[in-house]
Formats: sequence, C-alpha cells, structure tokens
Amino acid sequence: MGVVLGEEVVEYRGIGHTQPRRVTNGISPRSVLIVNKLRTKPVVEAIETLLTYIRENYPDVQVYHEDRPDIPEGAKVWRPGPDAEPIDLVITLGGDGTILHASSLFKVGAVPPVLSFSMGTLGFLLPFHIDDYTKAIDSAFAGRITVLHRMRLSCSFQDSGGSPVDTHCDDWQVMNEIALHRGSSPHLNTIDVFVDGQHLTEAVSDGLIVSTPTGSTAYSLSAGGPIVHPSLSAIVLTPICPRSLSFRPLVFPSSSSITLRISERSRASAGLSMDGQISHVLSPGESVTVRASLHPIPCINRSSITEPPQMRPDEDGAIGGMSGEGVGPGKEDDWVRDINNLLQYNATFRSKALTRHSRS
Amino acid sequence: MGVVLGEEVVEYRGIGHTQPRRVTNGISPRSVLIVNKLRTKPVVEAIETLLTYIRENYPDVQVYHEDRPDIPEGAKVWRPGPDAEPIDLVITLGGDGTILHASSLFKVGAVPPVLSFSMGTLGFLLPFHIDDYTKAIDSAFAGRITVLHRMRLSCSFQDSGGSPVDTHCDDWQVMNEIALHRGSSPHLNTIDVFVDGQHLTEAVSDGLIVSTPTGSTAYSLSAGGPIVHPSLSAIVLTPICPRSLSFRPLVFPSSSSITLRISERSRASAGLSMDGQISHVLSPGESVTVRASLHPIPCINRSSITEPPQMRPDEDGAIGGMSGEGVGPGKEDDWVRDINNLLQYNATFRSKALTRHSRS
Amino acid sequence: MGVVLGEEVVEYRGIGHTQPRRVTNGISPRSVLIVNKLRTKPVVEAIETLLTYIRENYPDVQVYHEDRPDIPEGAKVWRPGPDAEPIDLVITLGGDGTILHASSLFKVGAVPPVLSFSMGTLGFLLPFHIDDYTKAIDSAFAGRITVLHRMRLSCSFQDSGGSPVDTHCDDWQVMNEIALHRGSSPHLNTIDVFVDGQHLTEAVSDGLIVSTPTGSTAYSLSAGGPIVHPSLSAIVLTPICPRSLSFRPLVFPSSSSITLRISERSRASAGLSMDGQISHVLSPGESVTVRASLHPIPCINRSSITEPPQMRPDEDGAIGGMSGEGVGPGKEDDWVRDINNLLQYNATFRSKALTRHSRS
Amino acid sequence: MGVVLGEEVVEYRGIGHTQPRRVTNGISPRSVLIVNKLRTKPVVEAIETLLTYIRENYPDVQVYHEDRPDIPEGAKVWRPGPDAEPIDLVITLGGDGTILHASSLFKVGAVPPVLSFSMGTLGFLLPFHIDDYTKAIDSAFAGRITVLHRMRLSCSFQDSGGSPVDTHCDDWQVMNEIALHRGSSPHLNTIDVFVDGQHLTEAVSDGLIVSTPTGSTAYSLSAGGPIVHPSLSAIVLTPICPRSLSFRPLVFPSSSSITLRISERSRASAGLSMDGQISHVLSPGESVTVRASLHPIPCINRSSITEPPQMRPDEDGAIGGMSGEGVGPGKEDDWVRDINNLLQYNATFRSKALTRHSRS
Ligand SMILES: NC(=O)C1=CN([C@@H]2O[C@H](COP(=O)(O)OP(=O)(O)OC[C@H]3O[C@@H](n4cnc5c(N)ncnc54)[C@H](O)[C@@H]3O)[C@@H](O)[C@H]2O)C=CC1
Ligand SMILES: NC(=O)C1=CN([C@@H]2O[C@H](COP(=O)(O)OP(=O)(O)OC[C@H]3O[C@@H](n4cnc5c(N)ncnc54)[C@H](O)[C@@H]3O)[C@@H](O)[C@H]2O)C=CC1
Ligand SMILES: NC(=O)C1=CN([C@@H]2O[C@H](COP(=O)(O)OP(=O)(O)OC[C@H]3O[C@@H](n4cnc5c(N)ncnc54)[C@H](O)[C@@H]3O)[C@@H](O)[C@H]2O)C=CC1
Ligand SMILES: NC(=O)C1=CN([C@@H]2O[C@H](COP(=O)(O)OP(=O)(O)OC[C@H]3O[C@@H](n4cnc5c(N)ncnc54)[C@H](O)[C@@H]3O)[C@@H](O)[C@H]2O)C=CC1
Repeated sequence: MGVVLGEEVVEYRGIGHTQPRRVTNGISPRSVLIVNKLRTKPVVEAIETLLTYIRENYPDVQVYHEDRPDIPEGAKVWRPGPDAEPIDLVITLGGDGTILHASSLFKVGAVPPVLSFSMGTLGFLLPFHIDDYTKAIDSAFAGRITVLHRMRLSCSFQDSGGSPVDTHCDDWQVMNEIALHRGSSPHLNTIDVFVDGQHLTEAVSDGLIVSTPTGSTAYSLSAGGPIVHPSLSAIVLTPICPRSLSFRPLVFPSSSSITLRISERSRASAGLSMDGQISHVLSPGESVTVRASLHPIPCINRSSITEPPQMRPDEDGAIGGMSGEGVGPGKEDDWVRDINNLLQYNATFRSKALTRHSRS
Repeated sequence: MGVVLGEEVVEYRGIGHTQPRRVTNGISPRSVLIVNKLRTKPVVEAIETLLTYIRENYPDVQVYHEDRPDIPEGAKVWRPGPDAEPIDLVITLGGDGTILHASSLFKVGAVPPVLSFSMGTLGFLLPFHIDDYTKAIDSAFAGRITVLHRMRLSCSFQDSGGSPVDTHCDDWQVMNEIALHRGSSPHLNTIDVFVDGQHLTEAVSDGLIVSTPTGSTAYSLSAGGPIVHPSLSAIVLTPICPRSLSFRPLVFPSSSSITLRISERSRASAGLSMDGQISHVLSPGESVTVRASLHPIPCINRSSITEPPQMRPDEDGAIGGMSGEGVGPGKEDDWVRDINNLLQYNATFRSKALTRHSRS
Repeated sequence: MGVVLGEEVVEYRGIGHTQPRRVTNGISPRSVLIVNKLRTKPVVEAIETLLTYIRENYPDVQVYHEDRPDIPEGAKVWRPGPDAEPIDLVITLGGDGTILHASSLFKVGAVPPVLSFSMGTLGFLLPFHIDDYTKAIDSAFAGRITVLHRMRLSCSFQDSGGSPVDTHCDDWQVMNEIALHRGSSPHLNTIDVFVDGQHLTEAVSDGLIVSTPTGSTAYSLSAGGPIVHPSLSAIVLTPICPRSLSFRPLVFPSSSSITLRISERSRASAGLSMDGQISHVLSPGESVTVRASLHPIPCINRSSITEPPQMRPDEDGAIGGMSGEGVGPGKEDDWVRDINNLLQYNATFRSKALTRHSRS
Repeated sequence: MGVVLGEEVVEYRGIGHTQPRRVTNGISPRSVLIVNKLRTKPVVEAIETLLTYIRENYPDVQVYHEDRPDIPEGAKVWRPGPDAEPIDLVITLGGDGTILHASSLFKVGAVPPVLSFSMGTLGFLLPFHIDDYTKAIDSAFAGRITVLHRMRLSCSFQDSGGSPVDTHCDDWQVMNEIALHRGSSPHLNTIDVFVDGQHLTEAVSDGLIVSTPTGSTAYSLSAGGPIVHPSLSAIVLTPICPRSLSFRPLVFPSSSSITLRISERSRASAGLSMDGQISHVLSPGESVTVRASLHPIPCINRSSITEPPQMRPDEDGAIGGMSGEGVGPGKEDDWVRDINNLLQYNATFRSKALTRHSRS
C-alpha cells in the first residue's frame, strides 16, 4: 500500500495521519494519468504543452488518459478498476469538479498523488496555475513535494430489511460529500440518523449532507455547516432546510459510521448524490451507511513547491502524540489563503475612504 | 504518565487517542479527592453518605478534600500544585461547573479518572445520579469502567512585543473554552487571529471563543458553533457577534496553535475567561496562544457501568488505523443521550394529538 | 369589497391594515363553503356532523363543496373563478395544507372569512379543534369573531425579453411562499434579484424563497429565515443553501416588488412552487415578479371566541397612527401559543430533576 | 407636528407612513444645528467651510451648536430639552455614531430633517460625502429633497413591583437598538420576554436586542438577525448567544410593545445600552418596555439630490392602500447600495481569473 513517487515510499498511514509528508531525493514516477472533463481550447492546448514537456524532459514516463474519443496523441488508454494499470501520478486540468472526477476513478486501493492545475480560475482544490507547470512538474517528478491526504468517504446500502444490497457500490468513494435530497418531490422526507448503530435523531427536512472536511467548504457550507480544516479526520453531518429550530451541524470522529435510513413513514423518497453526481434514489425503508474510506487522496500542496526544499521537523513540542496533523508553525497553509481569497471569509465591513467613483 | 486505578495502568496515550479504555481486574484506588463547589444541604449530606460508604467498604482508601473551612470529617486537606498528594480518583458532586472546577485543580501532569455525580439535575458532564452511588463507586473501585479522555486546552500569553509573559499561567488548563469578550466596554474589539503562526483573519466583534469538543455544547453553541463529539481531537473557533456577514465557525486539528492578538488599533481591550472564570484583561498588542493540552481529563462513562462487564473489541473493521476513536458499534453513547435529552437536539415540530388542556 | 358576515360589513381595508377586526350583532352568513383535502374517516364524519348541525341550527344557509366525486349530501357544487357563487364563510377541515388549498381557490377578489378546524393534530394555521365545533360555528354565525388578515402574495411572469407571459397566472395567490428550487438538477442555479426594479444581488444557490409573514414559519424557517408576526405587512426573502458566506435573510415592506430572474448563464433552470405546489419551470432569462396581493385571507382567531364578547378598544396610546396592527395589550395571541407549543421556540436546555426512568 | 422646511410642511404622518416625501418650492430653513462628536482636524475644517458657505449664501439662517468648549465661531449655543430653540435642519459631520448622537438630542417632539456628511469614510447612515456639501446644502435649503423617516424606539422602566420608575427616562429615543447584556458578569442572565403583555419566552443568554429596521444592520446583524429595510415599520428581537438551540430572531409589527424583565432567579443583572451607550443596570425583577416612538428621524436621502428634481408618482398600482412605503419602482435606493458596498452582502465566491500576483 504505497506509491513509488520518489526514493522514499509515500506510505499511506491511514486516515488518522493525514499530515503533509515530504518526499526527497526522488525517482521520477513512471506512469502519469492526465484527467480532464472539458475539452475547451485552453484545456486541449494545456494538455499538448504538458505532453510535450514530459516527453522531452522525462522520456521514460508513460502518459495515460481515460478512454474517450478525444484521447491526446501519445497517451495510452487507461481504464479504471481492479486491473487498471498502476499510476504513479495524476495530473488534473480544469475546475474543482475535475478533481472530484479524478477521485471517482480510484475506488479500489490507494490513490496516487494528484497534481491539480487550474485553467486560470481559482478553485478550492486547485493549487497550481497552469502557467506554473514547469516548476510544478519538475518538483513533483523530483519528489520535492508534500501532500495533503484528503479524507474520503465510502458508502454501503441496505434494503428495508437491513440486508446489504448491491455490494459493488461500496467501492464508490467521495471527496466532498454524500447528500440525500427530496429533489423535485414537493414533500419533505423523514430520515432516521444512526451513529455507530445508535439512533441519533429523526430528520424531517429537504435532506442531509454527510461531508468530509474537504467537502465542508462545498455543499455543507451552503447549508450552514462549519468550515473544517482538511487535515482533520472528521465527518460532518449538516441538515438541508430541516423543519426544526434546533438542528445544528454535528462533527464526528472519522471512526464513526453514519447510517441514514429513509423512514417508512416518509412521504418522499430521497435522491442520493455523491460529490454532486446523482446516483440512486432511496425509497422508504432503505438506508445508506457512510464511513471514512481507507483511501484518502494525496493532493500535492502548492506551498510545498514554492518553498526551498527542506524537511519539516517531525515533532511539535506542545502535542507529543499528534505531531502529524496540521501544518507546522510558520508553514504557509494553502487553506488559509483559500478561505480568505476564495470564500472571502470574514470580509469586514468596509470603512475605506470613499472614492469619487463610489460617491455618485 | 499513568494512574494506578486497577491492575492495569490507564495509560494516557495522548490526545490523539481519546477512546474509552476499559480496565479490568482492578485494584482499588488508594486516594480519592472529593470536589464540590456549593455547600447546600443535599451536597453536604451526599458527601457524608459517600464518606461513610467508602470508609466501610474500602477502609484503606484515603479521602482528600480541598482546603476550605468546611472540610468534611475524616477527609484530609489536599492542596493542588506540583507537590500535591497523588490522587487516584476524583469524585465530583454538583453541576457541570463542579467538574470544570475539578479540572482547574489539575494543571500539571496527568489527571486521575473523574467520577461525576449530579445532585438530581441533568448536566452535560454529569453521568451519574447521586442515588446510584453504590453501583458507580463499586465499579470504579473494581476498575470495571471505561473513560472518555476529554481534551483540554492550555494557553500562554505574549506581551505587545511578542515575548512570553507570566509563564506560570501556562499551566492553566480548560475543559470548555477560552473566551475573549469586550465585557462591559461599549466598543467592539479588533482581534487578529493566527493559526500556526499564519495570519488567518481580523475579527471585529464582541469576542472570540476557542473551544474544545467538550466546550462545543457550552458557550460556543450559544454563539452559533457546531456540536463536536467529545471523542474527536479538535479545536473550534467561534466568533461572538462578529461585525461581518461572512464569519463562520472553524474546526481545526488539535495539533494547531491558535493565537489571538488584540490589535493595536482595537478600541477596546478584552477580558479573558477560562471555563467561565474571568482571569485577565488583554490590552491592545497583547496576545494569547491556545494549544491542546497534554493532559486530557479521563471522565468515567455512565454506559460503562450499567452494562455487563465485557471488553470492547479493539478494532473496527472499516477503519483500521483509527480504531481507537469514538464509541464502538452497538455501544451506547452518553453523548447521544445528552444531545437529545438535554439540548433537545432537533426537537421536531409537534403534530401530536391535541389534548383538551392545550385547546382552550 | 366587503363580505356580509354580520350586521357590520367586514371591510378589507387593504394590506396595510391587517388588524383583527371584531364584528358584532351579526347576521348569519348565507353561504358556506366546506373545504377538505383528504377523505379519511374522521374528516368524512366531521363533515357529516357539521352539515347536520348547520342544517338544524341555520336552516337558511346554503352549503357548498368543491366539485369532487365525493361531494357530501346536501352540499351544492361550487366552482372557483370569476363567476363563482358568492361565499360568506369558508370552513376547512384538515391540516395546514387544507387552508393553503382553500386560499388557492380564491384567486380573484376578496376572500371570505375562514374558520379552520384541525382533525386532532396541531397546525400552525389551525385555530380550532373539531371537538369545539358548536362554539366556533355559533360564534362565527353570530359575528362574535375577530379575524387576522393574513397577507398573500401574487405573482406575474416575464419571458427572457421581459415581456409579460401567461397573464391568467397572475391570479395565483399564495399564503406561505413562492419558492424557486433547482429540484433534481445537480447544478446550482444563478438568479438575479431585483427590488422595485433595482438590482439587489446575484444568488448562486439551491433556490430562493419569497415568503409572507405567515410563511415565515414554513419553508423559510427551515432555510434559516426569521419568524415574522403574521399581522405585519412584509415580504421575506430567504436563500436556500446559497454558495456564499454572506447571504442573510431580508425583510422588505409589503409595498416592494421582488423580481427573480434566472440568469442567462445559470447552469440550471428552476422549478417554481407556490405554497408547496410545483407549477412552472423557469428557464434561463425568464423571471417572476412577486407582489403583495390585494386580497389577504381573513382567518378567524381562536382567541376571539374563547373570550367574552367585547369590543377591543380601537386605539393604542403609544402609537397613534398605527393602532390597527398587532394584537392589543392584554389580548391573547394565538401566534405566541403556536410559537411555543408547535415550534417549541427557545426550548431551554433541561435542568429538570432526573427521574428514575431517565437515569438508567 | 410639522417642521417648516420648504413651502410645504413636512408633516410627520406617524410611523405607519415612513415613505420618502419630496418637498418642493422650498423656503429656506431658518435655524440649523451642526452636530459633531469628534474635533479632528478634518471635522473642524469642514465645519468652518460649512459655516462660511451658509453665512454667504443663506445669511438669514441662524447656526446652532451643542454647548461645548469648542463651539465654532458664529454659532449660538443650543441646549436640548422641552425649551430648546426650534431647529429646522440638523447637519451632522462624522460617522454613524454622530447621527446616533444627533438622534439622542431630540427626545421630545418631532425631529427636524437630518443631513449627514461622512468625513470620507463610508457609513450606513451617511449619505453625503463632505466634498459634495454645496449641492447637498443647496438642495436641502431649496427643499428639493426626500426624507426617509427612520423609526425610533422609546422605552420606559418598571421596578420589581411593576410600577413605572424614573419617568423622565421615557424620553430616551433610540435609532438602532436597546440592548441588554450581562457585560462582564461571568453568568448568563435570565430574561422574561412579554409581547403586548403576553409572556412569549424565557431567555437564558448573554442578552437580548430590541432593534429598529435601521438597527438591523448594526448589533442585531452581528448577533444573527435579519436585514430589515428601514422603510418598514417593525421591531426586531434578536438574542445574544442564547443557551438554546431553538431561539430564532423575531420580527413584530411596530405597534407591539416588548417588555424585557430580568427574572427574579437570574444569576446576573443586565446592563442596558441605548444605541451603544450604556445607561442603566437592570437588577432581577426590574424591566424595560420598548415601543415604537412617535418621533421618527427624517433622514435626507442621497438619491433625492443626485437626481433631477421631479415628483415621485404617489401611487403604486399593485398595492393601493400602501403606496407610501418603500421606494418607488425604478428609483435608486441608497439602502441597496449600502447593503452591497458596505456589508458586501452575498459576496459570491470568487472564480475570477488568477493574476500573477495572487499565484505565488
Ligand atoms: N447549494 C450548493 O451549494 C450545492 C453545492 N454542490 C456542490 O457541488 C459539488 C460538485 O461540484 P462540481 O462538479 O464542480 O459542480 P458545479 O460545477 O455545480 O460546482 C459547484 C461549485 O462548488 C465548488 N466546489 C466543489 N468542491 C468544493 C470544495 N471542496 N470546496 C469549495 N468549493 C467547492 C466548485 O468550484 C463550484 O464552484 C458537490 O460535491 C457539492 O458539494 C452541489 C449542489 C448544490
Ligand atoms: N452565553 C452563554 O452561553 C455563556 C456560557 N457560558 C458557559 O458557562 C461555562 C461555565 O459554566 P458554569 O461555571 O457552570 O457557569 P454557569 O453556572 O453560568 O452555567 C453555565 C451553563 O452551561 C452549562 N455547561 C457548562 N459546561 C457545559 C458543557 N461542556 N456542555 C453543555 N453545557 C455546559 C452548565 O450546565 C450551565 O447550565 C463556561 O465554560 C461557558 O462555556 C459562560 C458565559 C456565557
Ligand atoms: N424543507 C421544508 O421545510 C419544506 C417546507 N415546505 C412547506 O410546506 C408547505 C406546504 O404545506 P403542505 O401542503 O401541508 O405540505 P406538507 O404536507 O409537506 O407539510 C409541510 C409542513 O409544513 C407545515 N406548514 C405549512 N404551512 C405552515 C406555516 N405557515 N407555518 C408553519 N407550518 C406550516 C405543515 O403543517 C406541515 O407540517 C409549503 O408552503 C412550504 O412552506 C415545502 C417543502 C420543503
Ligand atoms: N458586536 C457588535 O456588532 C456591536 C455593535 N454595536 C453597535 O454599535 C452602535 C453604536 O455605534 P457607534 O457609536 O458608532 O459605536 P462604534 O464606534 O463602536 O461603531 C460601531 C460600528 O457600527 C456601525 N453602525 C452603527 N450604526 C449602524 C447601522 N444602523 N447600520 C450599520 N452599521 C452601523 C458603525 O459605523 C461602526 O462601524 C450600537 O448602536 C450598536 O448597534 C455595539 C456593540 C457591539
């Protein structure tokens, strides 16, 4: 359970240990998967440029691409699944949705490190601007990177008798959230929530969101959830328009299993979305159980590259046993930047001097 | 770093491992500290009863009490501090505030397990009703208990030049939260927030709360914060009446250090409360840094006693590396009960049949 | 514009004057419309009982019912519309949804007073228990009642060029709200909001709710909106899961017109619901304009009946020009009861004595 | 009850009618009160400039100033109270707090129109930039203005026996809010809330805010309240950090009277602030009753001046009886600008193109 990216193996130490891990003295990855959703001109051109750069500078590397009619020249077809060719590095081009899509390709086993390029638009999961591709690729190939292991969730389904159904579905892994929603049913649905098998509450609402820390800035945020640092291992439960004054978002340890069961007396069934993709409809009596996945996504940090290559000291005086989590003191945290720049977190009311322009 | 409570040592495995830990084949604790705040008649009588019971059934045990004029007969005076007599078990009688007070007595080193009795009033941190004292004490003395390691926070102070001040204050440990508040100043204060040394935001508000998961149901809840399961290791930052539309509660890993610095241009200073006790006033330029404490409080679970004594299986199929956190499947969780009974979490709008009484 | 209910005419004084208005020395209404949605046994039996009671005690009264296969014996068919038979009193039997349905039957012109019976279940819009039918009917027929004029909203539609479409739709009147929602589209929609023709904001969200004060305890509440007293004339705008940290519910005077326009670059269209009934889908470019309706619904107050018949003094010392709104001092307000009993408004955390039962 | 500002009398038509009212063919006001709080250099210079301008262009006008050591040359001393010299126009220079202060000077009787200049900083209650003083003053003196009648609240106090106390205090009028807060007491206070004499709820919290629509963007906003358009006549009740999951802001008609009574069993007394000025401490048993004031503040609208002078049509097709409220269609509303520019209402998450600067 490890991906050869540099001389050292990036061992996935499990979800409890989601610290950035720096890898030095790297040996180049040998296989790269390029993922894109759109085929806009900028994306197509960027792929060309990347392919040329890799071919010229890392001639031994095999580039793969999903099996689509428009597969770029020089790339081999890659098909997800248990027998998929092993991939050492994933490169995504596009918006946040492209990374969510890349995540969905790796449902079984460990996920290789992901290097994500934005096409000029800020995104929450997009550390690199496409214009910086040479620096980013060279660092990644030299192993001078750190990764943030973003937790994922997996889910399994039970029929109204409580028996597991459709077991191959267990393999679906989400980066953001699993959401249940009444969709276009006019009626509220009634969902029983269980935590580790114990009944927690009955929710009468538009729906419920079970989110990762990564997803806490996505749908859960819109529904009123807290913002959770992605290096924390936790599961967030956020209601969508509950018919109650006293529903409040809950944060559980990542060891919890959360079961959502459509009540037998629910007037509506509920559509289940995984990272925004509608996959199922759950009828009254049916349930879904959500757990932390064994396979987080190692996302390459932007800050790991813009800094001089040096090891991060592995302990943190104050908190012996936990040194792994979070970002070390003095270390720039992409997340803080994103919270401020993208979400405009806590934008203070302006008292700035009036310009002529704003006056009349 | 362990307290002899039973034959097995309850090792504090640090904050990252806050699972309930069952201890079997116990040897009785040898020293017990009784903590109470009020001296109401029920409390005084309950202490008498407990003392008699312990004297008769566990004659070798030494009972201690804080140094107050009203120290109960048969108890020896106990003074907190580095040279304090070692305590194997703490018994509290009173409300949630009594446990907060007990916590404040153990600022250095590990904390012994805490057995908390309510005096007939429900409390969030009060698992046992005083009427159940024999069962509770016998289980605790026999080591047939599990504990929830409730995380605490410690804090250190810096002057306006950034130099540490008043270092003996570092030892203060809180179970609920550290809160900064303008108090009775008419003006809002301006506080700069740093996470791991990096500037996060400037808060113009009534104040800020840095809370443990335990404290997430206390002041932070009132200020709009999420409810965080106490077995999670995390730090919650919740603003109090911020002058911003876009401030949202944040949840950090417990490895983070949070610095709150009163801005030089703040119009008001800020009173600092620890678990509700006002301790300092911070002036513009001064700051406090909050970190997870090395010394959580092991609170004895109610559910551990009412169940037949059996070991909890130590792994949790789904999530290998994290088996320690949370409450195992099928296991009753006091917290779920409290959320529902005390907070009336998600009380659904009533559609119950009308009684005559409610009609006219 | 008045309905003969008693000797005095209940003049609809327009939305600005939604005060309860007591009518004395009544002459019986001559035509009654009975409205029900369900045909459950209790409903059917209750209708029988009412019909018998009216026939025996008010033989001159003509009872009407909507045109359905199951029209009760002795009732004449009533068809809504401009040529509908005039109705002096509406009686509803069922849940809140039944009153919403009754409201939808009166799209043109003034609405007669509405007497609403619950079938044993509390509802927000249901003042009377069916068991109290004799007292309620006698009071209503004798004109010893006050009504709360509940504001309604009407809406008109514009195509992407801004031209009005489908003008007969203007007649739809809602008591709770007009809601736009993405429904089962996976994508957020983008809606431009205009107030009195002026651009207010661009909302990227699941949808938006334009609510009456009556509707403030319905969907708007679930989405986080404030609770607005139904005797206030106001329009509430509440977003549904907005992708923004800084969207906050807005309250406008009832004179405002609110236009919601699906942005040309919205990735999703939006389903439009009126009091929970899905009626239209708005495509990018299309818009709906919402205004206070000229025709509020006069709902008979429960408290007006349980009290001895006496005129409410017409002025309110403090606030000369406004004496009409609200409920006079000392007067019981059904709404306060509902807020507490139904919504369990501000249910305080329990510190009640523990019973044996709750302990183990 | 009217202030001669132009040829036509601006009649205060009471709080129910807070519409902008345009006054034409004006006769100059004869007495002007200049209000400032700070004596910073820009403020002092601005006062000089204004005085010179008025003296030269409106030689018959008498300028007044509060009785302070630093009264500007040429101004006569003005003392508030029942025998105060009549004032036809108030001019404020400073921040929002300066208007709040001006409001506090007019406790009895009607308030003259207020022209507010910001000193270069945006404010919510500050329509005019000081650089625009000639246009603003000329329009005001010529009566080519509209005013927004901003509602105020008055309050009276009752002792623990319910008898009125300190009756001269009734005269205090607030523009923003009356707030009760525990201040620097460590304990929560318990407050009983009554609406029109009827018990609504018992609040255990840091405090409560009773706010005008104007104040809805001040403290109430920070505490989570809705944003209410200032042309609506309403009273907002917003809790400050309530120990309840189910407290939600409430909006009442302006005819309501709200009584806040410190419960006899409250552990803390409560400091009472009026527009941010701490005035009283209420002890357990004591109460304050808040009502809409008879005397709103007529604030001169910015938009009324920058537009060509023309009458606003007096009716609003859709809503016959209510034509007075709000801002007419197509008319620019200062409030919409403020919501967007100052509060950054619904600032959407940025997806703008990355600049070089923001990338590394
Ligand atoms: N009302 C809402 O806020 C809704 C949100 N969504 C979110 O959209 C996600 C799917 O994204 P797309 O496929 O790109 O659909 P999309 O193209 O509809 O985009 C949704 C938006 O969410 C942003 N986003 C995605 N993941 C994020 C994250 N972890 N943190 C911050 N922002 C994030 C994207 O940048 C985009 O602006 C879902 O996983 C769900 O979280 C889906 C439906 C409704
Ligand atoms: N507006 C608010 O909600 C405020 C809350 N507090 C809280 O009060 C705490 C101090 O408590 P006491 O000394 O008992 O003062 P207290 O006697 O004033 O009680 C505060 C209330 O908080 C409850 N409480 C305490 N810790 C709790 C927890 N972890 N979860 C749920 N409820 C809890 C207590 O049972 C009591 O009902 C502070 O640590 C702070 O969290 C303090 C000030 C204001
Ligand atoms: N997430 C949510 O809260 C949603 C709420 N709704 C509401 O349901 C209403 C339609 O009601 P029904 O036809 O009965 O559908 P329904 O049978 O699905 O009931 C919705 C619930 O809302 C209650 N309700 C209706 N009007 C209310 C009011 N003014 N104040 C307080 N509670 C109220 C009803 O008693 C019922 O419990 C819509 O107008 C909308 O307000 C509709 C969809 C989602
Ligand atoms: N946590 C908070 O948000 C607090 C807010 N306040 C507010 O401050 C007001 C007193 O203001 P100052 O004397 O200027 O004190 P201040 O100088 O402390 O300013 C408070 C801030 O509120 C702004 N403000 C005042 N009235 C406003 C309104 N109606 N809408 C939007 N913003 C407004 C001011 O521009 C200033 O930025 C009080 O009436 C109260 O509303 C007071 C205490 C705490």
